[in-house]
Amino acid sequence: MVLGLDPGTLVTGYGIVSRTGERMTLIACGTLTNGPELSLGVRLRCIFDGLSALIERHHPDQFAIESAFYGKNAQSALKLGHARGVSLLAAVKGGLPTAEYSPREIKKAVVGNGTASKEQVRFMVGSLLGVDRPAMALDASDALAVAICHLHRMTTGPRPHRDWKSYVATHPERVVR
Amino acid sequence: MVLGLDPGTLVTGYGIVSRTGERMTLIACGTLTNGPELSLGVRLRCIFDGLSALIERHHPDQFAIESAFYGKNAQSALKLGHARGVSLLAAVKGGLPTAEYSPREIKKAVVGNGTASKEQVRFMVGSLLGVDRPAMALDASDALAVAICHLHRMTTGPRPHRDWKSYVATHPERVVR
Repeated sequence: MVLGLDPGTLVTGYGIVSRTGERMTLIACGTLTNGPELSLGVRLRCIFDGLSALIERHHPDQFAIESAFYGKNAQSALKLGHARGVSLLAAVKGGLPTAEYSPREIKKAVVGNGTASKEQVRFMVGSLLGVDRPAMALDASDALAVAICHLHRMTTGPRPHRDWKSYVATHPERVVR
Repeated sequence: MVLGLDPGTLVTGYGIVSRTGERMTLIACGTLTNGPELSLGVRLRCIFDGLSALIERHHPDQFAIESAFYGKNAQSALKLGHARGVSLLAAVKGGLPTAEYSPREIKKAVVGNGTASKEQVRFMVGSLLGVDRPAMALDASDALAVAICHLHRMTTGPRPHRDWKSYVATHPERVVR
């Protein structure tokens, strides 16, 4: 069972999906929403406590999160970093292994097209999970898409190494010392 | 008693300073250091757990942190955001009110010059606290400088309002509805 996350300091979308054979089932989805009047520290506590409660209630065994989007400006990246930081902390404190996927990988896994719109992602998420919720919050459907992408990757095997560091970590015998 | 922080995902400097009348005393300082081989989630847990332990041991009643530096690129800002997020979470979970100061404000409060070098900051921190530690880690002296800046500000009164939002928050009667 995978907890997928689309983090943000104002709205964090979450989606929990389980899989039995070929069949994926929606366990829970929604958003953790913070008022803009709350201080940053209080918002971060709401995200951390909300995720910790979800992990305790549903016992997912994997955690997947959208990898950061580096194209934005530094201030947006900093804000997103705060929300991602406390989200990753909640996962690690809950004993869950964590995985990251780029927005493009997620869209490709769910819609088959790396540049799909959020509405297209929501439509395909509903179709794959056999639920009809056209009014589902886009942050929630994005989070479900992260979870579906991770379930898909776990079936199709590990991803190719993206850099030398991860290659060396899994093939220490290949290193000439 | 103030816990000052200079956060980073690899090295987080901390410094705790108390004040009695005009006299400031160094209570504790050091760094929480993470190996680059650790996953981001594990590093964030080390920062959070380390700060939580410091708060439990020394019972500071204020928390001050360097405000983010927006000049850097988005990827640096994102990384810094992760460390700041879990640091603010530890403070809020520990019941501490939080304050932020820009690097320029901190240097001005400690050295009297907003463009001072880290070595000048370290020298003045040692002098103000009456300790002679020329080899103190620069991340630790930077964190002590944040704490000293906050003690200084608490004495000289609240800062002028930096934007309309904070002005409105403290003067609700001035809003024409």
